[in-house]
Amino acid sequence: MIKWLEGPRKDEDVVVSTRIRVARNIENYKFPQYINLEESKELTDEILNGMKKISGDDNYRFIRINDLTPRERFVYIEEHLISPSLVQKVDKSSFLLRNDEKVTIMINEEDHIRIQVLMPGLNFEEGWQLCTQIDDLLEENLDYAFHERLGYLTSCPTNVGTGLRASVMVHLPCLVMTGHINAIVEALSKIGLTVRGIYGEGSETLGHLFQISNQTTLGEKEESIIKKLNNVIFQVVARERNIRKNLMEKKKVEMEDKIFRSFGLLKHSRLMSSKEAMGHLSNVKLGCEMGIINDVASKEILKLMVEIQPASIQANLNKEMTKEERDINRAQLIRNFL
Amino acid sequence: MIKWLEGPRKDEDVVVSTRIRVARNIENYKFPQYINLEESKELTDEILNGMKKISGDDNYRFIRINDLTPRERFVYIEEHLISPSLVQKVDKSSFLLRNDEKVTIMINEEDHIRIQVLMPGLNFEEGWQLCTQIDDLLEENLDYAFHERLGYLTSCPTNVGTGLRASVMVHLPCLVMTGHINAIVEALSKIGLTVRGIYGEGSETLGHLFQISNQTTLGEKEESIIKKLNNVIFQVVARERNIRKNLMEKKKVEMEDKIFRSFGLLKHSRLMSSKEAMGHLSNVKLGCEMGIINDVASKEILKLMVEIQPASIQANLNKEMTKEERDINRAQLIRNFL
Repeated sequence: MIKWLEGPRKDEDVVVSTRIRVARNIENYKFPQYINLEESKELTDEILNGMKKISGDDNYRFIRINDLTPRERFVYIEEHLISPSLVQKVDKSSFLLRNDEKVTIMINEEDHIRIQVLMPGLNFEEGWQLCTQIDDLLEENLDYAFHERLGYLTSCPTNVGTGLRASVMVHLPCLVMTGHINAIVEALSKIGLTVRGIYGEGSETLGHLFQISNQTTLGEKEESIIKKLNNVIFQVVARERNIRKNLMEKKKVEMEDKIFRSFGLLKHSRLMSSKEAMGHLSNVKLGCEMGIINDVASKEILKLMVEIQPASIQANLNKEMTKEERDINRAQLIRNFL
Repeated sequence: MIKWLEGPRKDEDVVVSTRIRVARNIENYKFPQYINLEESKELTDEILNGMKKISGDDNYRFIRINDLTPRERFVYIEEHLISPSLVQKVDKSSFLLRNDEKVTIMINEEDHIRIQVLMPGLNFEEGWQLCTQIDDLLEENLDYAFHERLGYLTSCPTNVGTGLRASVMVHLPCLVMTGHINAIVEALSKIGLTVRGIYGEGSETLGHLFQISNQTTLGEKEESIIKKLNNVIFQVVARERNIRKNLMEKKKVEMEDKIFRSFGLLKHSRLMSSKEAMGHLSNVKLGCEMGIINDVASKEILKLMVEIQPASIQANLNKEMTKEERDINRAQLIRNFL
């Protein structure tokens, strides 16, 4: 599980992952929300045809949403491999997933095509390079909807232009603890960046994990968007690190207490909601990064953060569960792991 | 430490201890609050003289409050061996402590003499027998202030008559959890019983431990007071046991979760107040009684409940500590123990 976390992870103490996604549409087809079943089939075939050049060596799986059980759909969402909107139109949407799970090409999400590249740690260079390479290959075979002055045309005007959303998932427990996070979120929004919870737009903040992404796609070059975001992330990472160092110098016992309490609760509870678990796992991850907890790897904690989500819990034991059953099994899964 | 907990303990799953104390005064001496230093010395000598018959075989230690450091005084209080009021008049008060620590004879507390017998578990018979035997021996040598119609005269009118206070310390976590405790406290007060925290009058309830004692001392025989209290305690014990059984049948996972969370926090915290520790130790004690936790003896938890009190913590390491230092050392003491 969570294959995409494998590989070198730069600045992994704060940055969990880097995500690049571009939105593309095909000329002469209606946008996904207006398309009928027949047209969507034709469109999907055309895209799959265009994909052959890339996936010819069989390193992509093609998956129709309709072929997945509702639970399986949510597992892909919890693993950050597809977006929640992709499962809204079950009979029209599908996706291609590269075997290393670092690339997903979603078909008929909000746009005809959404290419997502997911890299562990902070890695805009490789992420952008890979994304633009796939995009170029697709463009050779597909007739992208493109407007000379505006750029790529998209279903939602907020994506018109580059169609690019670059984002990082950052772990900011100490900025949250000290309350500095509010000023930072405000400052980021003033310079055209968005801060969200880990499951995208409108999702709750869990485990002190935040997604920071660009808001504007129009009137700016891709490289400039990414460079700006990269610079900002550097500063956010430095702030979080600085506060961690500070807390370790001035509030060592309090930090150890907070971290070990979470560790103790994770190791002993018999019932635990995913929200509570995310909070404690976040503290334990912090403990790993700060050298307070040494017998767990922080990457394993990140994996656990996905495995304890409601659909993943049920998929793991392959059965439907009530909330209480999930809470029991989640507590057990965590105990067994730690 | 906590020698008096040794020995057989009847109904130990709910009853921690049984205490009998009688208040006595010596004819021709002013009550302790009016006595001067000279008179108190004379009185103390007279009482010690009277004690010779009992303590002749050297199984009592004589301790003057003035010879103890303030911290040492509080350790005796935390161990339930003396009352908080005994340390108010440092130059006039003293006590005799039997080597097994089950008997304390306090001199110049609120009355000239207070004999306290402390037994582990529910044990009114032995407690009362021992107390009355010591009382009789003392009376042979001392001229007790006694009024034909009223009985023993005491400094506070609430003790006039028998001068007897019989009490039990009970552990009622499930009556507290389910909220039944309020109705029980109310019912007990209606039949002339008092419910208090573990460190006596006005003290806070800690660790779901309660002291239940008689309120009336006048117009009733000692045996009848004790019998009545004993019967009531039987009912309280039955109620607590009944609810424990019920919760184990209907809320097993929730109970295990509550108990193991406390266990996990005790095993991992780095900072802990005595109030918080008492709550978690109470849950762990319940876990021992219910067979949920098997690697700790409930008697050891009771000892720990005393050892983590502020003065005992400092006495253990023989140094003065700030609140934070105590919280650190308390957490460490508990971790080491568990």
